[in-house]
Amino acid sequence: MNFTLKVLGTASALPTVNRYPSAQVLDVRGRLFLIDCGEGVQMQMRRKGISSLRIENICISHIHGDHLFGLFGLLSTMTLMGRTRHLDIFAPRAFGPVLKFYISYFGEGMKFGIDHHVLSMKEPEKVWESRSTEMLAFPLNHRIETYGFIIREKPPMHNVRKEAISGYGLTLAEIAALKRGEDVIRPAGEDAAPSVANGFRRFSGTSEPLVISNAEAAYVPYTPRSFAYCSDTAPFPELSGWVKGVDLLYHEATFSDEYSEMAEKTHHSTARQAAECALAAGAGKLLIGHYSSRFSDLGILLKEACEVFPATELAQEGMVIEVPLQKF
Amino acid sequence: MNFTLKVLGTASALPTVNRYPSAQVLDVRGRLFLIDCGEGVQMQMRRKGISSLRIENICISHIHGDHLFGLFGLLSTMTLMGRTRHLDIFAPRAFGPVLKFYISYFGEGMKFGIDHHVLSMKEPEKVWESRSTEMLAFPLNHRIETYGFIIREKPPMHNVRKEAISGYGLTLAEIAALKRGEDVIRPAGEDAAPSVANGFRRFSGTSEPLVISNAEAAYVPYTPRSFAYCSDTAPFPELSGWVKGVDLLYHEATFSDEYSEMAEKTHHSTARQAAECALAAGAGKLLIGHYSSRFSDLGILLKEACEVFPATELAQEGMVIEVPLQKF
Repeated sequence: MNFTLKVLGTASALPTVNRYPSAQVLDVRGRLFLIDCGEGVQMQMRRKGISSLRIENICISHIHGDHLFGLFGLLSTMTLMGRTRHLDIFAPRAFGPVLKFYISYFGEGMKFGIDHHVLSMKEPEKVWESRSTEMLAFPLNHRIETYGFIIREKPPMHNVRKEAISGYGLTLAEIAALKRGEDVIRPAGEDAAPSVANGFRRFSGTSEPLVISNAEAAYVPYTPRSFAYCSDTAPFPELSGWVKGVDLLYHEATFSDEYSEMAEKTHHSTARQAAECALAAGAGKLLIGHYSSRFSDLGILLKEACEVFPATELAQEGMVIEVPLQKF
Repeated sequence: MNFTLKVLGTASALPTVNRYPSAQVLDVRGRLFLIDCGEGVQMQMRRKGISSLRIENICISHIHGDHLFGLFGLLSTMTLMGRTRHLDIFAPRAFGPVLKFYISYFGEGMKFGIDHHVLSMKEPEKVWESRSTEMLAFPLNHRIETYGFIIREKPPMHNVRKEAISGYGLTLAEIAALKRGEDVIRPAGEDAAPSVANGFRRFSGTSEPLVISNAEAAYVPYTPRSFAYCSDTAPFPELSGWVKGVDLLYHEATFSDEYSEMAEKTHHSTARQAAECALAAGAGKLLIGHYSSRFSDLGILLKEACEVFPATELAQEGMVIEVPLQKF
């Protein structure tokens, strides 16, 4: 039941000796999401022991090279490794010609299909789900069409307390309703044939209906976990609402306060602005990255973010962040 | 007057944790040739302190991703760094659509032009030269159209010995002929007006012509240095003749003897075959690389090559090989 982010690249447009362009892998219960695909991502994945064959979904925030140029090498490696498993890529419309180009010129021998799920929403929309997990995409505010992503566990089925099952003589239908988070309401009256009624509809046994509240008879076994990825973007009012309450927020922080004009001009954020978003969203933790190559020392970015939102960490190549499961 | 090879990548199709795909930079007297452009080449260049702005010529052996996928990131970085200097790329015809795609989708802001010099020769041909250096390209024997490269200093002008200048009273025209490597032949007879004759044609002073041999009156100041790059290729008879006498031969050695069938099937070479080429060519030194990812220990490749050609070295990321200037 892991929910683990592995940071593979933290650079912005210009990589440095130690910083690779944007790429992260989120592992949700063994299902791997690759988010952005900067150059060198396949080598970084190897270093973190992540097989390219295990990647199920790839999210491409936008069609700038520092978020994309590792994809061709990765797809070629998947081909050479004999991948047959279908691959889903979530990316803006402009990704279409990029994928077509790759397949035309370098797609020889590919034994797996790729679906390009075109992102074009104006507000958060679910773009993928499994039984336990879902992914939403939403627009960001960059120089070109860009999207952010929320990946989160779905609310779990409630657990029904044993004492409620025996105390109320809950039927299977009532247990199922409680599991779905509903209250149980038994209509006024007596069960016609108690021996048969179990498993069917039950009555309150009095002249009043009986309400068995979900809060009394059931409980949420754990809090679903969530991660949001916001890069590249300038601040905009709706964003904090869209990522409200996420456990882990990755937000780009290309610049320090000193370069706020440049941040505005290039549609990027300062570390402080990333922190303001985290604060307004009530995020559990903020992870900043996408650093301008001018910062060899990232201390100033961390300092300025922490002044607003103390639970900030600097993303670094190779970093692993586990969002722990909170059980009840 | 340096002639220095820097190895940036030694992997074949599948990079490993420590091995990057093919890329090398040759520095000939401060002029930089980038030979192949595997993914991550711009980071590797930074690690070796090579500015992308200083690259003058890029050679792309063939259009397989492991020799090419670093180019897009490199061109983007050149653009961001404000490059204005023209760039020459020597590559097969199939590179044309790749470059066109890059410029169409990612070329915004480029302030430098790129010439694609289409390689299509059947035997070695000069494709570029400066006053002191020249580059030849020649076909290799791979699954797709592939070219190798020779980069070498041109034969230098000869130095004329001081004692010959004074002893023979050499004219400027005679000195120029000796510098070009020619002999000087003075026709029989006397100079008509010795005071004027200097700087013009001179005569032998006897009834016989006078031959002043180049070997006596002049000497070659240094041996021109040469490097050949052969990757990817299966062995073929002409190759050793084409790279005859190079000081430093880089030849792919994807496999060991054990995998010779696979080498043949995939149009690659074994380490032994690389060494056989070096031996037949009389190369000064052999550098092998383009290792299959199955070899975590490269010892077997070095051993099998050295059995044939002892002056073999294993290429490794970050390696710097200087071909020393041999003066006379």
